[in-house]
Amino acid sequence: METKRIRMTVAYDGTNYHGWQIQNNGITIESELNRCLTGLLQEPIQVCGASRTDAGVHALGNVAVFDTLSRMPAGKIAYALNQRLPEDIRIQKSEEAPPGWHPRYCESRKTYEYRIYRGEFPMPVKRLYSYFTYHTLDVERMREAAACLVGEHDFKSFCQAGAQVRSTVRTLYGLQVEEQGADIAIRVCGNGFLYNMVRIIAGTLLEVGQGKREPESMQDVLKAKNRAAAGPTAPAHGLTLVGYEFL
Amino acid sequence: METKRIRMTVAYDGTNYHGWQIQNNGITIESELNRCLTGLLQEPIQVCGASRTDAGVHALGNVAVFDTLSRMPAGKIAYALNQRLPEDIRIQKSEEAPPGWHPRYCESRKTYEYRIYRGEFPMPVKRLYSYFTYHTLDVERMREAAACLVGEHDFKSFCQAGAQVRSTVRTLYGLQVEEQGADIAIRVCGNGFLYNMVRIIAGTLLEVGQGKREPESMQDVLKAKNRAAAGPTAPAHGLTLVGYEFL
Repeated sequence: METKRIRMTVAYDGTNYHGWQIQNNGITIESELNRCLTGLLQEPIQVCGASRTDAGVHALGNVAVFDTLSRMPAGKIAYALNQRLPEDIRIQKSEEAPPGWHPRYCESRKTYEYRIYRGEFPMPVKRLYSYFTYHTLDVERMREAAACLVGEHDFKSFCQAGAQVRSTVRTLYGLQVEEQGADIAIRVCGNGFLYNMVRIIAGTLLEVGQGKREPESMQDVLKAKNRAAAGPTAPAHGLTLVGYEFL
Repeated sequence: METKRIRMTVAYDGTNYHGWQIQNNGITIESELNRCLTGLLQEPIQVCGASRTDAGVHALGNVAVFDTLSRMPAGKIAYALNQRLPEDIRIQKSEEAPPGWHPRYCESRKTYEYRIYRGEFPMPVKRLYSYFTYHTLDVERMREAAACLVGEHDFKSFCQAGAQVRSTVRTLYGLQVEEQGADIAIRVCGNGFLYNMVRIIAGTLLEVGQGKREPESMQDVLKAKNRAAAGPTAPAHGLTLVGYEFL
């Protein structure tokens, strides 16, 4: 019997999940995918995700792979699986991938968006997908600070302290701060991200926008290679994994 | 003791409510406002809403008024009340209004937005605030049809059958169909709306976009003065009451 490897693009609203990765206490995106795929394909399935997003983080295009003996055409799996999944998880695409292909062991560009809503009071329809602040933010200052982070750098200061990782060097291809009405969208594209890196970048840019830090201080933050030099970790619910591009 | 009239701008996510108006079975926006205001001001409060939105409909700026003996400064009520309200209801503004001022008995312009998301599969982070369709929609045709409805017309065909109303003549000041990436936003501004009118307009424009109706047929729909001549009532969750302008 021959197995084939299936690659899926997975979108979800992270509000009601304990993140991607399987846990003992709490439902996760991974556990829901495994449960529904196992039911659909009638064999034990374990998916492997490209990005193990934290509790509360959303995704338009995370990627997962799994192997199956099933003869169901790869493209049909998205349709059939969506019938079984809860409505806050939806497969956007399913396709066959080369045997052994793994999203974490190949070069990719990954895009995240961190969304901020500015107002005197929170706006209920935005509360699940953006971080609310009543602070005035100077977007031009945030842009200046963001520009300092683009390129290849040691992002140790922007990595959750204690995270186990071989190298803290990453490349950011772009980091835009865009005003969209009362919203600010921080969009970042890179070859990889350290644990909590996007949320720490967002938290630091928020401090720059509020005038608590100077835009030029970002150079010192990078040089410090110390988590304490950067700003706070912005809340999870403002973060969305937009998608992957595999090179 | 002198009462004063307070006007509030009220935003909410309608997902978890049985609409605005008080019901015997189910929590509503009105019942939550009454409960929290009564607790805050320590006197029985009954608000009166400008628009009694249906179950599932959202608002950025509905308007409510109430009378109170409280000496709390009008502008502070928003802050204090937001501390008591559930997080899916947030007062955006509170201010004193002239005695006897009532949002339903004064001229106003009211804006609604109906949001549509087009894709092969639903997108979880959009599911609560837009109507999903996998149909291809011809936005140019929808715009042509929309243009026929602008102005003063008898909108009887766009009113839920059986609704009690003196006149079915209303004026639409604008009806735009805007493409925003994979979304379509139908934005309509008028001096008043009949029961389900915006959702029936949206449902009819969706049929035009799908090619099931001709844009020019809107003239015949208006002339028919018969609910059966228009398209289906589009689902509530795609609809948001954007706000009021009082003249």
